Amino acid sequence: MRELRVTIQEAERASYPIFLGSRLDEIFAQWLRENGPWGRVALISDDRVATVHGRRWQTILAAAGLGVVTLTFPAGESSKTRGTKAQLEDDLLAAGLGRDSLIVALGGGVTLDLAGFVAATYMRGLPLVSLPTTTLAMVDSAIGGKTGVDTDQGKNLIGAFHPPQAVFADISHLETLPEPVYLAGFAEAVKHGLIASVSHFEKLEHAAAALLARDRQVLESVLAESVAIKVGFVEKDQRESNARKALNFGHTFGHALERLSGWQLSHGDAVARGLLAECRLSRHLKLCSLADEKRLERLLVRFKFVQEPFDRLGPELTPEPRGRLAFNDYLRATGSDKKARDGKVEYVLLATIGEVARGGENSDSWTRPVADDTIREALWQTW
Amino acid sequence: MRELRVTIQEAERASYPIFLGSRLDEIFAQWLRENGPWGRVALISDDRVATVHGRRWQTILAAAGLGVVTLTFPAGESSKTRGTKAQLEDDLLAAGLGRDSLIVALGGGVTLDLAGFVAATYMRGLPLVSLPTTTLAMVDSAIGGKTGVDTDQGKNLIGAFHPPQAVFADISHLETLPEPVYLAGFAEAVKHGLIASVSHFEKLEHAAAALLARDRQVLESVLAESVAIKVGFVEKDQRESNARKALNFGHTFGHALERLSGWQLSHGDAVARGLLAECRLSRHLKLCSLADEKRLERLLVRFKFVQEPFDRLGPELTPEPRGRLAFNDYLRATGSDKKARDGKVEYVLLATIGEVARGGENSDSWTRPVADDTIREALWQTW
Repeated sequence: MRELRVTIQEAERASYPIFLGSRLDEIFAQWLRENGPWGRVALISDDRVATVHGRRWQTILAAAGLGVVTLTFPAGESSKTRGTKAQLEDDLLAAGLGRDSLIVALGGGVTLDLAGFVAATYMRGLPLVSLPTTTLAMVDSAIGGKTGVDTDQGKNLIGAFHPPQAVFADISHLETLPEPVYLAGFAEAVKHGLIASVSHFEKLEHAAAALLARDRQVLESVLAESVAIKVGFVEKDQRESNARKALNFGHTFGHALERLSGWQLSHGDAVARGLLAECRLSRHLKLCSLADEKRLERLLVRFKFVQEPFDRLGPELTPEPRGRLAFNDYLRATGSDKKARDGKVEYVLLATIGEVARGGENSDSWTRPVADDTIREALWQTW
Repeated sequence: MRELRVTIQEAERASYPIFLGSRLDEIFAQWLRENGPWGRVALISDDRVATVHGRRWQTILAAAGLGVVTLTFPAGESSKTRGTKAQLEDDLLAAGLGRDSLIVALGGGVTLDLAGFVAATYMRGLPLVSLPTTTLAMVDSAIGGKTGVDTDQGKNLIGAFHPPQAVFADISHLETLPEPVYLAGFAEAVKHGLIASVSHFEKLEHAAAALLARDRQVLESVLAESVAIKVGFVEKDQRESNARKALNFGHTFGHALERLSGWQLSHGDAVARGLLAECRLSRHLKLCSLADEKRLERLLVRFKFVQEPFDRLGPELTPEPRGRLAFNDYLRATGSDKKARDGKVEYVLLATIGEVARGGENSDSWTRPVADDTIREALWQTW
C-alpha cells in the first residue's frame, strides 16, 4: 500500500470590495477597466428589474467595450430552482460564453443567489459581480458568498460558496421599490443590531422616520453599518461552522413559516416574525428580558412589521387550538433545515439586545439545541 | 460613497491523502474512525458497480457505526447530467441527510464526477471520499478535485472544484473489469509520460505485458507513478490557470471526437486518438519528431488502442473526402471546449516525449492557439 498526498498551495481569493453609495456608475466603470480584461459579460436579472434598471448597467458595460448578453427569468422566489439555473446555463452555452467571461447579477436576493450559483458552477466557476437592487439584498444576500437554489424540501438546499469579485450597492435602486419590498431589508438590519450591536439597534430606532422617507444620507450611513456587521461575521467564519450561524437568528422559525405558507409570506415579514418568535423563546429560557422583547416589538412595528409572530396570518398558519397549524407540522418544517444536526434543531438565542447567548454544552457554540417541549411552551401555549 | 471590504482569513483545505493498494478495507475503516465523527453516509455508485462492489464498502461503513444510505443511478456517461444530479439530491433530502453527512463515491469517472458534484453543492458542500473502481478513475478522475456533469453542448460544462477528503484506490477493483475498460486508463497514463516524464513512458513500454496481465505489484508501482505526475500538475495549479492545462494534451481532439460520436466512443479510446492527433499536429509544427510519433503509436498499440486517430471509425467520423466528417464540424465541436479563449482554440503541443512545448506569444503558457488551416493540414490532408 502506498500513500500519496495532494497539497494545494493556492489560497482562496482573499478579499473583495463592497461599494455603497448613490450613483456608482463611474465607480463601476472604473472597476471594470482596472480589473479586466474580460471576455464577454452576461447580465442576469429578473424580467421586472431588467425593465427598470437593465439599460443603465448594459450601457456602462457596453461603454467599457464589453460584449453583453442579457438574460432574464420570471421575477419571484418560484424562479429560484435548479430548472431556472439549467435554463440560464443553456442560454450562456448557446451564446458561447467561455471561461474568460464575467457574470453580473443585477437584482434582489433571488437573482443574486441564483445568478451567483450559475457563476459558481458554469465551467467550474466564473467571476461574479453583484449589483443588489433591494435593501434586503444590500444588507444580506450580496455579502458573504452564499449562493443557491430552493427545492420542494426547503430553501437554499442546493448551492455553493462563491464570493463575488466586487459588490456595487447603489442606493438609487431603492427609490423605485414598493414600500413592503423596500422595508423588508430592515428585518435583517434589526437582526444585525440584535445579535451584534446595541448601538446599531439604537441607530435604527432613531433613524426610523428618515429611513421610511428613504433619506439617502441616512440610508447610506445605516446600510453601511449594517453591512459592516454582516461582514464581521462572514470574515470570522465564511463557511458557517460557528460564528456565522448567529446570522441565522430568527431564520429557523422564519424559514419554517415561509415554507408552511407555500412561500407566500415575504422573506422580510417571515424574518421579522422569526426575530420575535426566537426572542420570545430566548426570554422563555430566561436569557433575554421582557423589556428587550417589547423593545424589539416596537422597532419592528416602526418598520411596519407585525407585533406578534402569528399575527395577521390565515388559520393555516395560526397555531392550534385557535388555528390549524399543528406543532408537529412546524417541527417537520424545521427538520430539513440545514442547521439541523442529528435531526435535532439548533437555535440561535439572544442574551440581550446586541448579544447572542453563547454556550450550552459547548461553551464556544453560537447555537443551542432546544427541546421540542420548550418550543411548544414558548410559542404555542402563549399564543 | 463608501467602500467596505470582505477579507476571508480561512484557507482552503490544504491537503488530502491518496491511498493506493490491493486491500484497503482496513485502511478505509481506520481513516473513518480517525476523521469522524460523521453523521450519516451516502454511498453513491452506478447500478453495475453497486452490484459488484457495493456490499463490501457498505459493510465497512456499517461496521464503523455509520448509518448508510445507498443511492444508485444507471451506469454510463448518459447519466452524467443535471437531471441525475437533481434526482440524487432529492433522494438525499428525502433520506434526511444533513450538513454533517459524508458522501462516498464508489465507481469510475462518471460516478466520481457526478457524486463529487452532488457533494460540492448539497447544502453548499458536504465532505467527499472517493473510491475509484477503474484504472481511468484511479489515475485521472479521482485526483484534482474536478467534479461536474455534461450538457448537450459538451462534457463537464457545469461543475465545481471540490477536492475529496481522501481517495482510496483499491487495485482489487480492477480484476473484474472488462479488458477495454481496464485498458482505457492507460491512455491517461501514457499522456502523463508524454507531458512530464520520459521515464514513466519507458516504464509503460517495459511493463506493458505485466500490465496486460494485471500483475498487482507492477500495477501498484505504475499507477503510483502516474498518479504522482497528475498530483504534481494539480499542486502547481489547482484551478487550471496554466500548468494544469498540460493535462488536456490529447483532449481537445479527443473530446471533439467523443462528442461527434454522440458519446459512443469510449473516453480511453477517444483520448488515445487525441494523443496521436495532437502529437501529429506537434510534429507538423516541427515541434516533436516523427520518431516520437511512431514510438507513441507503438505504445498505444501495445495497450490495444488504434494506430491512427481516425482508424476503425464509421464514415461519419472519418474526414472528408474519404468519409463524411467535415472539417468545419470538427471545429464547431471544439468551439465550446472550456479551453477556448476568444473563440480561438488553444492546444497543448509536444516538444518531445516527456516535455510540453511551452511558449508561443506568452513564453510562460502551456498552450498555444493553432490556426484552423494548420489543423486541417496536419490532420485532414494527411489522412
